[in-house]
Amino acid sequence: MEKTMKQAVMTDIRKVEIRRAAIPVPKDNEVLVKIEHVGICGSDLHYYESGRIGDFVVEPPFVLGHEASGIVVETGKDVESLKPGDRVALEPGKTCGECEFCKAGKYNLCKDVVFFATPPVDGVFQEYVTHEASLCFKLPEGMSTVEGALIEPLAVGFHAAMQGGAKIGQTAVVTGAGCIGLVSLLALKAMGVSRVFVVDVIEKRLQKALELGADQVINGKEEDAVRRIIELTQGKGCDLSVETAGSEITASCLIKASRKGAVIVFVGYSASGMMNLPIGTVLDKELTLKSVFRYRNIYPLAIEAVAGKKVNIQNIVTNYFELDDIQEALEECVENKAEIVKGVIRVG
Amino acid sequence: MEKTMKQAVMTDIRKVEIRRAAIPVPKDNEVLVKIEHVGICGSDLHYYESGRIGDFVVEPPFVLGHEASGIVVETGKDVESLKPGDRVALEPGKTCGECEFCKAGKYNLCKDVVFFATPPVDGVFQEYVTHEASLCFKLPEGMSTVEGALIEPLAVGFHAAMQGGAKIGQTAVVTGAGCIGLVSLLALKAMGVSRVFVVDVIEKRLQKALELGADQVINGKEEDAVRRIIELTQGKGCDLSVETAGSEITASCLIKASRKGAVIVFVGYSASGMMNLPIGTVLDKELTLKSVFRYRNIYPLAIEAVAGKKVNIQNIVTNYFELDDIQEALEECVENKAEIVKGVIRVG
Amino acid sequence: MEKTMKQAVMTDIRKVEIRRAAIPVPKDNEVLVKIEHVGICGSDLHYYESGRIGDFVVEPPFVLGHEASGIVVETGKDVESLKPGDRVALEPGKTCGECEFCKAGKYNLCKDVVFFATPPVDGVFQEYVTHEASLCFKLPEGMSTVEGALIEPLAVGFHAAMQGGAKIGQTAVVTGAGCIGLVSLLALKAMGVSRVFVVDVIEKRLQKALELGADQVINGKEEDAVRRIIELTQGKGCDLSVETAGSEITASCLIKASRKGAVIVFVGYSASGMMNLPIGTVLDKELTLKSVFRYRNIYPLAIEAVAGKKVNIQNIVTNYFELDDIQEALEECVENKAEIVKGVIRVG
Amino acid sequence: MEKTMKQAVMTDIRKVEIRRAAIPVPKDNEVLVKIEHVGICGSDLHYYESGRIGDFVVEPPFVLGHEASGIVVETGKDVESLKPGDRVALEPGKTCGECEFCKAGKYNLCKDVVFFATPPVDGVFQEYVTHEASLCFKLPEGMSTVEGALIEPLAVGFHAAMQGGAKIGQTAVVTGAGCIGLVSLLALKAMGVSRVFVVDVIEKRLQKALELGADQVINGKEEDAVRRIIELTQGKGCDLSVETAGSEITASCLIKASRKGAVIVFVGYSASGMMNLPIGTVLDKELTLKSVFRYRNIYPLAIEAVAGKKVNIQNIVTNYFELDDIQEALEECVENKAEIVKGVIRVG
Repeated sequence: MEKTMKQAVMTDIRKVEIRRAAIPVPKDNEVLVKIEHVGICGSDLHYYESGRIGDFVVEPPFVLGHEASGIVVETGKDVESLKPGDRVALEPGKTCGECEFCKAGKYNLCKDVVFFATPPVDGVFQEYVTHEASLCFKLPEGMSTVEGALIEPLAVGFHAAMQGGAKIGQTAVVTGAGCIGLVSLLALKAMGVSRVFVVDVIEKRLQKALELGADQVINGKEEDAVRRIIELTQGKGCDLSVETAGSEITASCLIKASRKGAVIVFVGYSASGMMNLPIGTVLDKELTLKSVFRYRNIYPLAIEAVAGKKVNIQNIVTNYFELDDIQEALEECVENKAEIVKGVIRVG
Repeated sequence: MEKTMKQAVMTDIRKVEIRRAAIPVPKDNEVLVKIEHVGICGSDLHYYESGRIGDFVVEPPFVLGHEASGIVVETGKDVESLKPGDRVALEPGKTCGECEFCKAGKYNLCKDVVFFATPPVDGVFQEYVTHEASLCFKLPEGMSTVEGALIEPLAVGFHAAMQGGAKIGQTAVVTGAGCIGLVSLLALKAMGVSRVFVVDVIEKRLQKALELGADQVINGKEEDAVRRIIELTQGKGCDLSVETAGSEITASCLIKASRKGAVIVFVGYSASGMMNLPIGTVLDKELTLKSVFRYRNIYPLAIEAVAGKKVNIQNIVTNYFELDDIQEALEECVENKAEIVKGVIRVG
Repeated sequence: MEKTMKQAVMTDIRKVEIRRAAIPVPKDNEVLVKIEHVGICGSDLHYYESGRIGDFVVEPPFVLGHEASGIVVETGKDVESLKPGDRVALEPGKTCGECEFCKAGKYNLCKDVVFFATPPVDGVFQEYVTHEASLCFKLPEGMSTVEGALIEPLAVGFHAAMQGGAKIGQTAVVTGAGCIGLVSLLALKAMGVSRVFVVDVIEKRLQKALELGADQVINGKEEDAVRRIIELTQGKGCDLSVETAGSEITASCLIKASRKGAVIVFVGYSASGMMNLPIGTVLDKELTLKSVFRYRNIYPLAIEAVAGKKVNIQNIVTNYFELDDIQEALEECVENKAEIVKGVIRVG
Repeated sequence: MEKTMKQAVMTDIRKVEIRRAAIPVPKDNEVLVKIEHVGICGSDLHYYESGRIGDFVVEPPFVLGHEASGIVVETGKDVESLKPGDRVALEPGKTCGECEFCKAGKYNLCKDVVFFATPPVDGVFQEYVTHEASLCFKLPEGMSTVEGALIEPLAVGFHAAMQGGAKIGQTAVVTGAGCIGLVSLLALKAMGVSRVFVVDVIEKRLQKALELGADQVINGKEEDAVRRIIELTQGKGCDLSVETAGSEITASCLIKASRKGAVIVFVGYSASGMMNLPIGTVLDKELTLKSVFRYRNIYPLAIEAVAGKKVNIQNIVTNYFELDDIQEALEECVENKAEIVKGVIRVG
């Protein structure tokens, strides 16, 4: 008799219901994972609220959720790296392995990627999932599956920090203190960056940033962020910055507050996709503008960083919800975006 | 009795006259150079025409010109690297050697730079100049002083190509086929880039680009440059591009025509300093936007490239003028910007 | 009825005979290639002569040959990138696509690699082979399958030059003018390196190097190579070097002839695997010693380099043989190592 | 009347006496520093004991000591960055600022460097010294001059770690737990390296390494270091290593214990300058061997690392001595090399 599991199915905009679905069977190179925790990402909320992100359109029924961790309960016959009982974090994107990007190590740019909860591929707000063993990263002793689920957003932070060439001795600025801004802060600190300042306009988020290790926070509504950064760096400007707010204002602020030769990493999308920027200043200072699309080759080091206590990732979570309450959870997150920095669904 | 020389002095907007000035005396670490050729740069024309570039304002009397070459006629007592009779190209910027940028090899970002023809520092439209021996690069046998004078703009092209990580196997695009676009083309080809396409709207410039080795030229007025680039790259987009036109349109074109993971190097300044760009596309493709401010550590390799026949730099010159005719020369260049790709003043 | 093909089977040390074997059938992601040319590599000769290289031991019957090109005659059902009639160069190593090295773009370090003619994996001295479509690179119009077969050794040269950071303006030295030394020379020149000197002790090889574009050749038996390199670089030493001779003497020569901060790329294996080197000099000059194991991500650019006439690879071939004469071919190559720089088997 | 100061003058091998010398007068771009602490480096002991290191020969009278810190007491007229009362760490090498190496940011390779206590240039075992203001780095509040003096050896550690590309997620090994091995350990940890193992044969030094943060120590006399490293890395080998012992045995150990694609940084000099190494293994694993000569552009970040409590540099000091007792201090250090990890002279 086929076994079934709970699955949170999006049936319409702002409508999610728990249904029963067959527990999937792992292929030879896959494992079956009993999911324990799934983080709620801004993109989940966006799909939930508006049914699309750019060209990606939800066709119900659809399953959201891509920040997952759990316990291996069954392994395909070719799997040697994992065994039942192993706790794992799931990297959500499966790539072709054969295109020029995959071959060159930039698999995040593979055009054939299949990524959890990116239409038409279903996500993992459900009790079980099958996934390639090579995308399931074993959590070491003493690391929880909550931390495991949060490796996904943390990976974005580390990819941003690495794209920026973060290193000891630098002064960095992060604009935007939402989840991605905060994981960027955590990654920068873990990589040895000497001082990290965080800019936002919501006091509660800035307090969270301070709690997570920001050296200074700047409320852009209350003070001139450019002037403050210049001041805090004795007139030099910042060496590195990560823009997660997705706004022309914050991006321009970073250009003006950057030191000559500095790097700015763009992570946040603006609503229109356009930004009017002072490119003349970029040229005068010979700045480099990097950008990130998801991440690549980050899971092992992010897990090691958390296991080694270089990053306290669990502290970014502000709200926990049960899978059965997912409709309420998503509603609450949508309604209180400023308050809820990070929600996590308990599935186990 | 003190010796004198001719010097072209800008006395007002669009007014230059030949005066006599004392021939300078070299300090211990300097050489006295009898100038043979000086290129006319767009910035010279800008100062001549409007008296300023950004915050740099000409206070007459002022001497323009910074792309110079000549013959060493006298050496300071500490100079060992040069002797009278050596033909040299002059790197125009003297830097402090002690700040963090200088120490780190990014001397082009030194805030204390003293640069020919950047107010209030006089330039070299004159018969003699003293200059640090370490900034005077000896030209090898068989390389002319016309080529020597053109090392300065060529250095911008090489710096752009290097900032972009130009290499064999790539397909590159250059937008703008003025002097800086053309030297970028030459640098890209010399560095082994497999195919270089040049985009402009003036047919004459595109012909020059073809003559100098462009693999394809695209007239942005006659065809959709983005579509054409995508087509020419079998749908992939370009790996690298250099934006020298200083326009939002060309910059946006490059973002759209870039392959995932590609690099775009910004060189051209827009009039307003602002550009409204599709940053969402930058993020989707994980592009890198580099920029250049002048150049650093390029003269030796640019000279070697010209001497080794990897670059035919002399071919970019469209017009030669005599120092005595400099007023007419500058007028002609200002009036015929589209026609005169590159003018050179013969001083010798 | 099953179709058969000729296959050159090594049955014992220095014994190869032509047998008939079944023509293989391509899997869904594979193509069937009718082979036209296969280069004879030093490793083929080594296996032929002594039955082993290090821990890799030939267990007859075994098929040698891994530098292959040919024509696609059949495609698996999932193959979209190729069609019958396409001429292709075959990258000989199939990797797992899932390990940390593959994911990071360093697939040449994959421990599960399956590589033509590396025991126990058979090679391609035969009329047909099936191979992953993603490892079969289409040759552009005007590029021959002789050139296609030579992409394999050329890829080693390009990987070495890239590991060394070869670029315009540099002076490079290659020690050893055998096949790998010569392809390194070709790669260095194609990447824009200004001057390449080649050192060997066999005059005939040095003549070949000159013919292929070496700027200077140095016969290490007739002159002191270190002194000559220092002299030719006006006392500076070389910026980059590639060691392909596999000898302590040449490696030490490069360390002594290097400029401060230079890079030396090790490619050649010494018989014992050991080298006694002046590491004190390495430290004094802060040299970097790189090494190469095969290559990665090189085929597309190497093909482009040949197609674009930046590399005349066909000129390295000194001897052609027919498949039916392979025993004589291998004998001749073994007996005349100094004379036969590169042999190619005509299969078509 | 001219003022005088104490100066420790080496008059013969193993003979140092305190003499009086004139207090020097700062030039326009210099400051006069009242020295507070000077570290005793292995090179000081080597000159003291044998009168030479390689081609550098002590011609008495000679002053040793190059790891200095102190208080600015007077400034030359052009100095703006410092004022009397500022506490500073002194970078000991003055470079030309004009050669290709200086211009390219690799000033440590400048051939015209003038470096404290490298014959014939006197060092700073004395009460006062004049030094270029640009080489005197201000210590922030709360950082002691003991820490300031130790920035010099720490800079070697950071340069080694940076040459090796140290980063989060890596497992690193340091061979040799003398001063330079320990500062390498400290630098690696500060840069976020996940695990650092230290190998030595002296138990006391290994205890010091543990105290300073080593994740594991390995006594090469008691266990097979290669096997242990492989074991501790679950069969993978280490990603990065720093060789400070200057021995063929430890260097070979690192080559064997390295993961494929790993980097080994050579810092320690062997007595003969030669090392017989398994280069075949280097090639099989495609290792990179880097090396370091002093350091460049490290002081600001090393000071920031100490000030920011990322490095507890003071803990490496095992013995303090007074300037008046320098003869006894040097004797004690020479006689107890294994015991005295780091001695510091109190001058103030």
